Amino acid sequence: MNAAADASPSLPPHVQPVALGQASRLVNHGPTVLISTAHEGRRNLMAAAWSMPVEFTPPRIAVVIDKQTATCEIVSASGMLALVLPGRAMADVTYTVGSVSAHDEPLGSPDKFERYGIATWPGPVLGLPLPLGAAAWLECRVLRDEHTAAVAQAYDTWFVEVLGAWADERVFRGGRWSLREDNAALHTLHHLGGGLFGLPAVQVQARRLPEPGAG
Amino acid sequence: MNAAADASPSLPPHVQPVALGQASRLVNHGPTVLISTAHEGRRNLMAAAWSMPVEFTPPRIAVVIDKQTATCEIVSASGMLALVLPGRAMADVTYTVGSVSAHDEPLGSPDKFERYGIATWPGPVLGLPLPLGAAAWLECRVLRDEHTAAVAQAYDTWFVEVLGAWADERVFRGGRWSLREDNAALHTLHHLGGGLFGLPAVQVQARRLPEPGAG
Repeated sequence: MNAAADASPSLPPHVQPVALGQASRLVNHGPTVLISTAHEGRRNLMAAAWSMPVEFTPPRIAVVIDKQTATCEIVSASGMLALVLPGRAMADVTYTVGSVSAHDEPLGSPDKFERYGIATWPGPVLGLPLPLGAAAWLECRVLRDEHTAAVAQAYDTWFVEVLGAWADERVFRGGRWSLREDNAALHTLHHLGGGLFGLPAVQVQARRLPEPGAG
Repeated sequence: MNAAADASPSLPPHVQPVALGQASRLVNHGPTVLISTAHEGRRNLMAAAWSMPVEFTPPRIAVVIDKQTATCEIVSASGMLALVLPGRAMADVTYTVGSVSAHDEPLGSPDKFERYGIATWPGPVLGLPLPLGAAAWLECRVLRDEHTAAVAQAYDTWFVEVLGAWADERVFRGGRWSLREDNAALHTLHHLGGGLFGLPAVQVQARRLPEPGAG
């Protein structure tokens, strides 16, 4: 279990820590994520369809952040970010913060949290603004060395390490997703394009094929 | 359009080329992929839950390949691989080739294609073995430089460029996914863990939130 998260007495209702060894399971099935950032009084929230785990232990994730974005500026300065898994109830918010750039706004105008009324709770490890009502949250530090810096430059791909993870226990518990009709609002979003999201509401349990012959 | 694919008169039924500028849309929603490889008479097929696009044009994708795998050996030698998107009808095959390592087999035993009766067609650009019945296929070359080599070493993360892409027109056409009841066998797989796959059979169309105030 995550010691820092365990120590926090004030998680929002239904939010439970996820063991770090199980954090990669949150993003294993390819959900769209929000990237939440803050640095020296500036905050931002953007959507990113492109992320994936790269390692189980320690849990590490790669995420693509375009150099044109305000998020890239803030992450470069702060060295940290939170990945947030929006559920179905947050589809409009996800599409909107993914379509609007903080760069298009005049300096000093309300940030996206304020503009769209996105309430947050403070991340227990890094204090990043975590949108309430999501399915899961991961606070991460950026992994920086000569090679990852070069890859961030060439492919906009950042490698981060998960320092703390939390999920809504109604949809992820004991290291497993449980996507049911009664928790449809928390089903993860998978961006098919143009604001159309697929939801993993239907599932299939695969079986191992029999080995041929007797040998 | 893809010139190499256009020139091929012998695509399997329902298989159509995907314009390279739209290839990233095939993997944007986080599907599990199969990695198909071949080099000097040796072939292999494994499942990978961890891949993501990193660039639209040219279409580039990052994919995690564990150093322990036979696939890693073959890709290191050949510099190429195919990403295959299995549909629901291939869930058992996907789970099986993801659970069985070619390394566990005695040298000279049948490869996974042969063992599990996986019929293929030859990739029009690189000639890689492409499993019939999948939703989409991407033939890719490995991008190699000092930094990507270091990142492959540290994070098992390989960067590849798509040279040709094809999809079953019944599920992906004109650059868009169309996931309907009548093509459920071709719905992409999103691995929730333990062989349980989510399918994006349910969809939601997001809308832009209204901007606050008049300004």
